[in-house]
Amino acid sequence: MEALLFFAGAGAALILTSNHETGKSDKKTYGENRPDAHGNIAANRKKVQRVPLKEFPPLLNDRLLKAAVGEPTDRTPVWMMRQAGRYLPEFRELRKKADFFNMCQEPELACQVSLQPLERFPTLDAVIVFSDILVIPQAMGMEVIMVAGKGPVFPNPLKLPTDLEKLVMKPELEKTLGYVFDVVNLVRQKVNGRVPVIGFSGAPFTLMGYMIEGGGSKTLSNAKRWLLNHPVESHRLLQALTDIIVEYTVRKVEAGAQLLQIFESNGGDLGPEQYYEFSYPYLAQIARRVKEELKKKKLPVVPMTVFARGVNFEGALEKLAATEFDAVSLDWCIDPTVARNRLKNTSIQGNLDPCTLYASPGRIRQEVGKMLNGFGTQNYIANLGHGMHPDHDPEHAHAFIKAVQELSLEMNQNKK
Amino acid sequence: MEALLFFAGAGAALILTSNHETGKSDKKTYGENRPDAHGNIAANRKKVQRVPLKEFPPLLNDRLLKAAVGEPTDRTPVWMMRQAGRYLPEFRELRKKADFFNMCQEPELACQVSLQPLERFPTLDAVIVFSDILVIPQAMGMEVIMVAGKGPVFPNPLKLPTDLEKLVMKPELEKTLGYVFDVVNLVRQKVNGRVPVIGFSGAPFTLMGYMIEGGGSKTLSNAKRWLLNHPVESHRLLQALTDIIVEYTVRKVEAGAQLLQIFESNGGDLGPEQYYEFSYPYLAQIARRVKEELKKKKLPVVPMTVFARGVNFEGALEKLAATEFDAVSLDWCIDPTVARNRLKNTSIQGNLDPCTLYASPGRIRQEVGKMLNGFGTQNYIANLGHGMHPDHDPEHAHAFIKAVQELSLEMNQNKK
Repeated sequence: MEALLFFAGAGAALILTSNHETGKSDKKTYGENRPDAHGNIAANRKKVQRVPLKEFPPLLNDRLLKAAVGEPTDRTPVWMMRQAGRYLPEFRELRKKADFFNMCQEPELACQVSLQPLERFPTLDAVIVFSDILVIPQAMGMEVIMVAGKGPVFPNPLKLPTDLEKLVMKPELEKTLGYVFDVVNLVRQKVNGRVPVIGFSGAPFTLMGYMIEGGGSKTLSNAKRWLLNHPVESHRLLQALTDIIVEYTVRKVEAGAQLLQIFESNGGDLGPEQYYEFSYPYLAQIARRVKEELKKKKLPVVPMTVFARGVNFEGALEKLAATEFDAVSLDWCIDPTVARNRLKNTSIQGNLDPCTLYASPGRIRQEVGKMLNGFGTQNYIANLGHGMHPDHDPEHAHAFIKAVQELSLEMNQNKK
Repeated sequence: MEALLFFAGAGAALILTSNHETGKSDKKTYGENRPDAHGNIAANRKKVQRVPLKEFPPLLNDRLLKAAVGEPTDRTPVWMMRQAGRYLPEFRELRKKADFFNMCQEPELACQVSLQPLERFPTLDAVIVFSDILVIPQAMGMEVIMVAGKGPVFPNPLKLPTDLEKLVMKPELEKTLGYVFDVVNLVRQKVNGRVPVIGFSGAPFTLMGYMIEGGGSKTLSNAKRWLLNHPVESHRLLQALTDIIVEYTVRKVEAGAQLLQIFESNGGDLGPEQYYEFSYPYLAQIARRVKEELKKKKLPVVPMTVFARGVNFEGALEKLAATEFDAVSLDWCIDPTVARNRLKNTSIQGNLDPCTLYASPGRIRQEVGKMLNGFGTQNYIANLGHGMHPDHDPEHAHAFIKAVQELSLEMNQNKK
């Protein structure tokens, strides 16, 4: 309990400051971005009557799941990282009414947002559950607020290794992240078998980076100070995060997720040696343990993808492919043909430069064609090399989706 | 003249705003960050009586130059990118008195700053002339101000291709950048043959990125919009920048620079295809033309290094090595042994993660040892994988320098 109070004190002050001085902080932020006095987060949400997995209707479009595990598909499945987000006017409309994390915490709102891309682009091959990677630090007792124009901010980031004592290292996930499982289940209900539902989590090092830096960082100086000067405590934190992520993602499957993606967005900031010490082993562990747990719990052993952004160096992709992850998601800084040569029969996801969506629909189609030629249409999930940008035109996202679907179908038919 | 007035108008307003509202903008900024009514920049500086090259004393320590062109050295030479900067208290002291760009423009100040690292660490193997890559856009008529806590800001970035008409595409370099040549010459005078003097320039795409984004950018969205939607105009701008950079760096050699480094800091944000269209050809062109010009002008054909940050993908290093650049400078995201295998006899510069300087001197030494083992002590210039951070401890920089020098000497002696 002390942990929660520690973080609560200074955090509240900061929020008030930002509210009063800039008028820019988010709506309804205060008091819901960390566990309450009973250790709950979003206890007052409208709870979801979770439907058991066996009662869900059969999946009508399983291209994503097949491609992820290397089974043939009639055409390449496609979805976009951050497909539910600010580039959609319908998202911005909802966002006016609620703070970012409140959107994550209110199952009906988060569900509505998750479904927006599918409503607009009905041929999309997946829905990803709207949430944020930083809900895990929140569950551990750290406050995170979303500051307009800046992104997520931790008013009290971890400074010294002794700050670990203030963290809840083994949070009760139903109490702290039950709202996420509610959202997953509700999304699965509403999608109603049209496409698979993707659940995700941040990877340990990426979460550690935010928890120490207190937000986005160009250099990760403070987090790297920990790696260098407090390796034991760094591993302790990374292992605690790993344990939480394993349980968190398994529970997402239990709630309805049909594919899991792990985001190591900061992986590329590490040199190879630090990556192999502080990132890769935890990624590998997560994939292995999640699959073991799923088997043990007789839950569906869903496909898993890993996005280690910027980690393209010699041997790195090959080593990711050697884990229990089914598919490796790539950023745009690697040529598709080169990646396919390196990963041969491994399923790949990616990797159009999101900026390509600023080009004309004709040009987008041309670039998608090159990408499909490089990766091939099989063992492949088309996606961007990073998330959608807030200033993307939804019509250009549509052009991307259509190009993948039409061109890959054509390519497959020509092969016959 | 219209170009200058165009940029002047809105810029002045912005500066006043930032002065009055935040109280944080820099000192003595106004009116000196773009050409004056006569097309001059820093016309009121205390001009330097430039000493001709033939009058300079012989170079006492030529390890840097030898290593750059693959000649044997008794030990590995070492310097640090951004070695003259905020991590030095003596720099911060001077910085209190002058705006950042005024420091660049006042030869005695810039010279003093350039020499500070050598004064503190007399065994350093090079001095780099203090300046900024954005002095070139200034010479083209664009205003750039340094905003505390934010970095460089262009009050009026390029928006549309028609904005190119407002640029001075062929600035008179003696009028607009004569102050830089003054600094180079003065530094060479004051260094007095102790170590070589490095001159540098930003590469065309990196400069274009700043000119369009108006400052640092995570996504380079606007610059990439240009590449995608205005390729002809993008090439026009990149070629104009290339022409300026060639003349600019040749003149630096004429003024006293003994090695030239080109910074393509944003290269890694481009996917391979865009890199080969919009970055690499200009880098190659710069190296080729600079060397041709130096020969033609009977100037010393100095070694050239290129730092294309983040550009480590398959074939990229090899292609940089195939240009007229003598050495390839690497970031920390590639293993030294791998890099050495890929580049064989090419001279390499780099690549310790700057964050390693947060570790203890003992640990720094250990990491330097690994780096030297990977790269070898020959054809190699020890450096960081990026610039010094403002919060680095100078003593740790010293530990880095000493470790390189002592360990490489030891390794060379053991080989005998």
